[in-house]
Amino acid sequence: MSQAVCTATYRCFDDKADFQKKALGIAVGLTVGSWTDLPEARKAEMEKHLGRVVSVEEHAGTEPGTRYADIVIAYPDVNFSRDIPALLVTVFGKLSMDGRIKLLDLGFSADFLSAFPGPKFGLEGIRDLLGVHDRPLLMSIFKSVIGHDLPNLREQFYKQALGGVDLIKDDEILFENPLTPLQKRVEVCMEAARAAESETGQKLLYAVNLTGPTSKLASQAKLAIASGANALLFNVLAYGFDVLHELSSDPEISVPIAAHPAMAGAFYPSPHYGISAPLLLGKLMRLAGADLALFPSPYGSVVMPREENLAVQAALIDPALPVRPSFPVPSAGIHPGLVPLILRDFGTDVVVNAGGGIHGHAMGTAAGGQAFRQAITATMNGISLPDAAAQPGNEALKTAIDSWGHKQP
Amino acid sequence: MSQAVCTATYRCFDDKADFQKKALGIAVGLTVGSWTDLPEARKAEMEKHLGRVVSVEEHAGTEPGTRYADIVIAYPDVNFSRDIPALLVTVFGKLSMDGRIKLLDLGFSADFLSAFPGPKFGLEGIRDLLGVHDRPLLMSIFKSVIGHDLPNLREQFYKQALGGVDLIKDDEILFENPLTPLQKRVEVCMEAARAAESETGQKLLYAVNLTGPTSKLASQAKLAIASGANALLFNVLAYGFDVLHELSSDPEISVPIAAHPAMAGAFYPSPHYGISAPLLLGKLMRLAGADLALFPSPYGSVVMPREENLAVQAALIDPALPVRPSFPVPSAGIHPGLVPLILRDFGTDVVVNAGGGIHGHAMGTAAGGQAFRQAITATMNGISLPDAAAQPGNEALKTAIDSWGHKQP
Repeated sequence: MSQAVCTATYRCFDDKADFQKKALGIAVGLTVGSWTDLPEARKAEMEKHLGRVVSVEEHAGTEPGTRYADIVIAYPDVNFSRDIPALLVTVFGKLSMDGRIKLLDLGFSADFLSAFPGPKFGLEGIRDLLGVHDRPLLMSIFKSVIGHDLPNLREQFYKQALGGVDLIKDDEILFENPLTPLQKRVEVCMEAARAAESETGQKLLYAVNLTGPTSKLASQAKLAIASGANALLFNVLAYGFDVLHELSSDPEISVPIAAHPAMAGAFYPSPHYGISAPLLLGKLMRLAGADLALFPSPYGSVVMPREENLAVQAALIDPALPVRPSFPVPSAGIHPGLVPLILRDFGTDVVVNAGGGIHGHAMGTAAGGQAFRQAITATMNGISLPDAAAQPGNEALKTAIDSWGHKQP
Repeated sequence: MSQAVCTATYRCFDDKADFQKKALGIAVGLTVGSWTDLPEARKAEMEKHLGRVVSVEEHAGTEPGTRYADIVIAYPDVNFSRDIPALLVTVFGKLSMDGRIKLLDLGFSADFLSAFPGPKFGLEGIRDLLGVHDRPLLMSIFKSVIGHDLPNLREQFYKQALGGVDLIKDDEILFENPLTPLQKRVEVCMEAARAAESETGQKLLYAVNLTGPTSKLASQAKLAIASGANALLFNVLAYGFDVLHELSSDPEISVPIAAHPAMAGAFYPSPHYGISAPLLLGKLMRLAGADLALFPSPYGSVVMPREENLAVQAALIDPALPVRPSFPVPSAGIHPGLVPLILRDFGTDVVVNAGGGIHGHAMGTAAGGQAFRQAITATMNGISLPDAAAQPGNEALKTAIDSWGHKQP
């Protein structure tokens, strides 16, 4: 059979089950419902709808007597519409509630993929917008936003921009509010961006947080763009992948979208349940159109194991997926002393994203950004951070590594 | 302080942490960001935004040396907009990724609640539509839908309807497809419903599966209603609670919505991560407007522990929440022999929901429905199933308990 199929890979934990039988039960149960008791004539009609077991690999678990299996099932495209909710409900709707089982990966048919334009800008598009092609980008996060007024936010923005950052993002918990409403926030921050650019000569993207009722998100995005916003931040998992897909496919939403991983920890950390981080924060975010994808870094306070991190990155840039790569943004706990590790792990196509590591700098917020830029330049040139910190003009870096230390890979 | 707050209850697992300090870190970190280093004048301004630790209860874990704490934090309403994505991102956005932590419950301020009309019909409204006030309702699910054409679906529908069921729902994996497109499906099934009603005298709700792109769901729902649909089925978690809220609040969507729990197993089963079943499938479904809420039963193949089940039910009908109660629909693995258990556990305000337990009846689908109705009548009258099965006219019940057995509480 050469029909179009999408595949799902599951990790299924059971110390006694016949995994082959379990796999067959999934393939039949989530497609045609029953098979062996069908009359032959009906089987011929139904065959194109029948799920197939692609592979079952049994493994011993970490505890004695435990075992699990990685099971791959192929689902005929003809069974579902070409949208992420339909695919997820098909492969992991009821099944998610059936014992210890985690969805590890999805494979998409060319036909399914054809419904997804993917990121409108992607990694290269973001670089083009900023005119920066030869180094990692630097993103900073407001120190604190709740309860601050427009002049205060503008001041925070301006100081961050002066430090040479490429992107500034809203805090994901900044919602529509009387102190700093979306349109006004965009206006004052973009004005601060222009003021900083006249000093630094550097372009800057400001990802304003897109929030509110689902049906109003597209019009809010257009309002933000009309007010001058040149990027958006979006809490994808609080709304669903399909909403990101619709926003990113909208021709009038002509700016990059940064996908925030808020709520992701409800899905990926359990070994036994949920959806794996590389699928959730990597492949699906990219398919749905995230130009930048944030995920927990392996360095900081909010930890994801390094191999899982690298698998998220791999999914975001994997050339096998025929949509633009998303810019990987490992986040949380980042200070300038970690730049050599980040570049070793992620290469130069990475956004170094910092909050406290910029605002907490002893010489101030602008120096915080400068310290990161100095660390990036040094690392790109093969110079160790202590050596770079000793060079004239790199006082910001010296101060940073005096405060936070540094890790040389 | 008498400001409006919403509360979040977390279960936090850590064998060494200072839970009081952890709680304070959450309260400050997810609201104003920092507190102790603020100048006094600034503190006065920021106090209304500051999260508060309501309680911290430490417990020993099940394994020696392990421990956890149930932590309640109050979040000022002024920090977030009155929608579920904003509340979830505030209380469990970043925090979900910060170690072993599960969101157990949410408490809503009156002001937050005022944005939620809740279920348009709810439990009593469904009873009113059906004219059935004195017994549990009976819902049946198509045996198999994928690959079936309209005449076949109509035939399945008609046989189910003849058995005396009150509600029939689509399979959640039936998407828009050329064989049984939404409008035609509604037309033939509602025609079958009328044909059956002329024989049984019984009203029937058909919950047609609402699928497709997020921005088209409302218009699809209205199309379904224009074609005669008198209920909708919706895979809430594949789209987000806010989408259900918007659909249920739409005055033109004038039919009950049944919330399917597809994908819920990605959230609730882990003790350490995710969102508890009573919050996910109970309180939030109800707040967002589910008239009927399906969740895994404690009896069948897809298992949820009984106490968790009863907590889901409690959340769906709790009089403390000032919106209409949602009809509880414990699902999966239900056959007529379980009716006494279901009624003991859930009382009479429950929808008995069966698929295989109706279609698999040895005398056919209509007898499958009749067997359930006979089991319900017997149990309501305090007659044991074996005694009822021996009565004339109750052959369907006798056949069912001969096949599947029965459990008397």
